[in-house]
Amino acid sequence: MRPFFIHLDFTTGNLSPHDRTNIRKLSDMKGTFLDTKEELRILEKDDPVIYSFSEKVLPEENGHLQLATTFIRPGKIGDEYFMTKGHYHGRPDTSEAYLGLEGEGTLLMQTEKGDFEAFAIRLGVVAYIPPYWGHRMVNTGNTPFAFFAVYPGDAGHNYGDIERTGFVKILVERDGKPILIDNPRWKKG
Amino acid sequence: MRPFFIHLDFTTGNLSPHDRTNIRKLSDMKGTFLDTKEELRILEKDDPVIYSFSEKVLPEENGHLQLATTFIRPGKIGDEYFMTKGHYHGRPDTSEAYLGLEGEGTLLMQTEKGDFEAFAIRLGVVAYIPPYWGHRMVNTGNTPFAFFAVYPGDAGHNYGDIERTGFVKILVERDGKPILIDNPRWKKG
Repeated sequence: MRPFFIHLDFTTGNLSPHDRTNIRKLSDMKGTFLDTKEELRILEKDDPVIYSFSEKVLPEENGHLQLATTFIRPGKIGDEYFMTKGHYHGRPDTSEAYLGLEGEGTLLMQTEKGDFEAFAIRLGVVAYIPPYWGHRMVNTGNTPFAFFAVYPGDAGHNYGDIERTGFVKILVERDGKPILIDNPRWKKG
Repeated sequence: MRPFFIHLDFTTGNLSPHDRTNIRKLSDMKGTFLDTKEELRILEKDDPVIYSFSEKVLPEENGHLQLATTFIRPGKIGDEYFMTKGHYHGRPDTSEAYLGLEGEGTLLMQTEKGDFEAFAIRLGVVAYIPPYWGHRMVNTGNTPFAFFAVYPGDAGHNYGDIERTGFVKILVERDGKPILIDNPRWKKG
């Protein structure tokens, strides 16, 4: 394989060129938001895009890295902000580094035992997610939220465990501000 | 290990906080520049800093990542621009991703067999250096050149092979402009 370069736009988060863009609509995340009635009510008439991510296709092999930019739209389901599905890594002992670009968000992280951390992510913030920490990004602003991610080539994605347990805490709007509340549906892994 | 975050200044390249800054002076790179007579002449009266890099100290283990910013001063030894020593990875089948920040530079890459690539690196350029490609950064501008690097935790550094073989091509100034010329001292690995 030969070296290559791409451009990362710090304002929009656009990665150009990239090989693949994946779209996550509300119907792809059924049951993820706490207010399932509101989720269903919206899905009866619409299927909004919640987030998308653009990737370079690289070998899913140990020693390689993966490069991707994720864009989360602004919005809420009930009072819970738009967010990514969240995942552990398929190879759970692998890390990830995030770089905040456009907009404002919060990174939620947890272990299967229920240890929890949350960081505000803005332009220029680099977050390091160590091995065994599941991670989800939340758009807490009124504009698109974009961030760049680098992770090991063989990390893979485990969405199933988060689908099963949920996150320890969720981010909701109260009096116009984001606050973290305990997730009543959280199940220890 | 718990998650952490740091700030990356897109203008200066500063990574704050970081754990360690390593300084490379001309005396640390003896024999690296083509004009060894000029190298010695400068070292008789001075020992200029050529570059430095600031790192987060992270486990040197498979699954982790390493994060660092490198700053190359502007300048030349003879007509050859200031640059990093350059290295392969100690674990040669590992990649690296660079993100250009302040200033203007060129990334030189080569395999042990002598395949060669060079990319201009500016703010927002992400370069992917695949497994087995040695890499060196060169400051071709009149201001400091800074870039951010992410690489696998267990990649390690092999400086010895570049010290022994040199680079296939070197970057020199001709009529005020950077040009790549064949390195007369290059030895196939």
